[in-house]
Amino acid sequence: MTFVDTSGEPRGFDWDGRSLHVLDQTALPHVERWVRVDGPAVLLEAIGALRVRGAPLLGVLAARMLAMEAGRGAADWEALAVALRGARPTAVNLMHAVDRMRAARAAGRPLGAEADAVAAEDAAACARIAVAGAAALADGDGVLTVCHTGALATAGVGTALGAIRAAVHGAGKRIFVWVCETRPLLQGARLTGWELSRLGVPWALLADGAAASLLLGGRVQRVMVGADRIARNGDFANKTGTLAVAAAARLGGVPVDVLAPWTTVDPHCVDGQAIPIEQRGAAEVEGVAGAAGALRWAAAGGGVYNPAFDVTPGGWVRRLVTDRGVWAGPALADGAWLDQGGSTGTP
Amino acid sequence: MTFVDTSGEPRGFDWDGRSLHVLDQTALPHVERWVRVDGPAVLLEAIGALRVRGAPLLGVLAARMLAMEAGRGAADWEALAVALRGARPTAVNLMHAVDRMRAARAAGRPLGAEADAVAAEDAAACARIAVAGAAALADGDGVLTVCHTGALATAGVGTALGAIRAAVHGAGKRIFVWVCETRPLLQGARLTGWELSRLGVPWALLADGAAASLLLGGRVQRVMVGADRIARNGDFANKTGTLAVAAAARLGGVPVDVLAPWTTVDPHCVDGQAIPIEQRGAAEVEGVAGAAGALRWAAAGGGVYNPAFDVTPGGWVRRLVTDRGVWAGPALADGAWLDQGGSTGTP
Repeated sequence: MTFVDTSGEPRGFDWDGRSLHVLDQTALPHVERWVRVDGPAVLLEAIGALRVRGAPLLGVLAARMLAMEAGRGAADWEALAVALRGARPTAVNLMHAVDRMRAARAAGRPLGAEADAVAAEDAAACARIAVAGAAALADGDGVLTVCHTGALATAGVGTALGAIRAAVHGAGKRIFVWVCETRPLLQGARLTGWELSRLGVPWALLADGAAASLLLGGRVQRVMVGADRIARNGDFANKTGTLAVAAAARLGGVPVDVLAPWTTVDPHCVDGQAIPIEQRGAAEVEGVAGAAGALRWAAAGGGVYNPAFDVTPGGWVRRLVTDRGVWAGPALADGAWLDQGGSTGTP
Repeated sequence: MTFVDTSGEPRGFDWDGRSLHVLDQTALPHVERWVRVDGPAVLLEAIGALRVRGAPLLGVLAARMLAMEAGRGAADWEALAVALRGARPTAVNLMHAVDRMRAARAAGRPLGAEADAVAAEDAAACARIAVAGAAALADGDGVLTVCHTGALATAGVGTALGAIRAAVHGAGKRIFVWVCETRPLLQGARLTGWELSRLGVPWALLADGAAASLLLGGRVQRVMVGADRIARNGDFANKTGTLAVAAAARLGGVPVDVLAPWTTVDPHCVDGQAIPIEQRGAAEVEGVAGAAGALRWAAAGGGVYNPAFDVTPGGWVRRLVTDRGVWAGPALADGAWLDQGGSTGTP
């Protein structure tokens, strides 16, 4: 089954008003495999296995599933809400979406319309972020990115990749993208590369450890990344490897921009130390597994350190680009920016 | 064929006075495959494919091959010397060894004895480096390392791994080793893990991008790495990923020690910009290939940036540990340390 027009817009899910399908991101770029999400168990498994990923997309899918389950009169709706809310501990968008659906249910609002709104607002947020993000890019810039932040990770054009795309397709700037492969799960090599090729944006792949020589060698004009949770002081969690890139960028004088919808902001996290970091299994680092096949290469007898995310200090950020405003990183420290942007509820 | 006693000393080559065998490091840890090096073509292929690697080992093997070829009266000896000297452009040990054998030949000295001396001196250098390096480690320290710097990479106990081993087995200190997997060729996951397990030193594997959260999170007391070439001002080339680790260590206040034999020093390189960096093929980054099998996972349509090495500023080094002395990184800048250590000839 395919919903993908290979010449068209990349997208990570399909909702036709009756059934929900998601693109299995672990199978890309080898296979465009769509999975019908006909119940909560399928979605929870897909989230845990990272078949669906990207903090904004997780919120959109959780809202949709809660609406679908309410529509069929599920008796265990609240238990499902709890399970979805805890499915990935770092991405706060998931928690915001669940809480929004709970509030709508308590207020007697129709949940289908609420889930539609979650998706539409995410798409609109992406569009605003893309335009604001692209403004920082000059013709000829090299941009380095980590993990995947494109259309597959959101309900719209994406965040950092959305900005790159707006610069290229909207503003006609020539941009070259340096793509960190993003071990262990290779979202950069598999997903960002796939999406950039479809968008016709030139790119080159690199091992994560090779980013520093680009950043300290004057070959990158800007780092652009997404976020999974942003604390009050601007510290942000993002895919493991972001901190290493930000450190080299800092020493190399390369600005680091963070692009994320307001649903990624957690006003209840004082700083990065309060962000819970998901630790994942050893097998991800000891080898690789996916649609291309599975191999194990690590020597036996050692342990594994495999945090899914790391936390970069807000003070290292040049621009935080959201749909509710743009701030310089050092201006984030006192939390006043949260009042400018407005509340997102209680995560 | 096996020369490996699996409970005994790891070693990367075997010379019995008549024939040379090398352990195929691309096959580890799955298979301990020994290759008989019965002529220059086998050695040149093994160097190019990284079946043998480690800057000190390359010098030892080049010297041995030049002695073997002289022994059989090879007419093309000088052409072989040129080919070996250029087989890997960054590791200067190879060039030093070739030049030493040329000088011995010109002076009419027996080349077999000269090659023996190259190996014996490397082993002795490793022993001195290990003791001097271990002195910086305290009981309970966590040490982070990149690539592989153990017995397989030298004619002795190795450099950074030799120091860790001396701290554990010689001085009875408890040391935990954090092993960067070292994409794209995974020398950390495959070789360092293998050697640490054999030595009974506890370790954990991590994706290269995960090192920064350890270094900035207070979980690593010291970084210890090797080098492939050290310039006059202390700038040093080492496996790609070293610069990223050094950047995070610098911002995290974690000392970075470089451990290398004096044959790694290139007094003719003014600074790191004068060190040639080998660029390797795209396939290494687009997937993985080895004894475990081969997979390609990268999306199509992009380029690849795959430098085999990067260069870290000498000013970021806490201790440069060689067999001829130990220096603090900032003290290297003026080149006076080279007079203290003595010349290594003309690379």
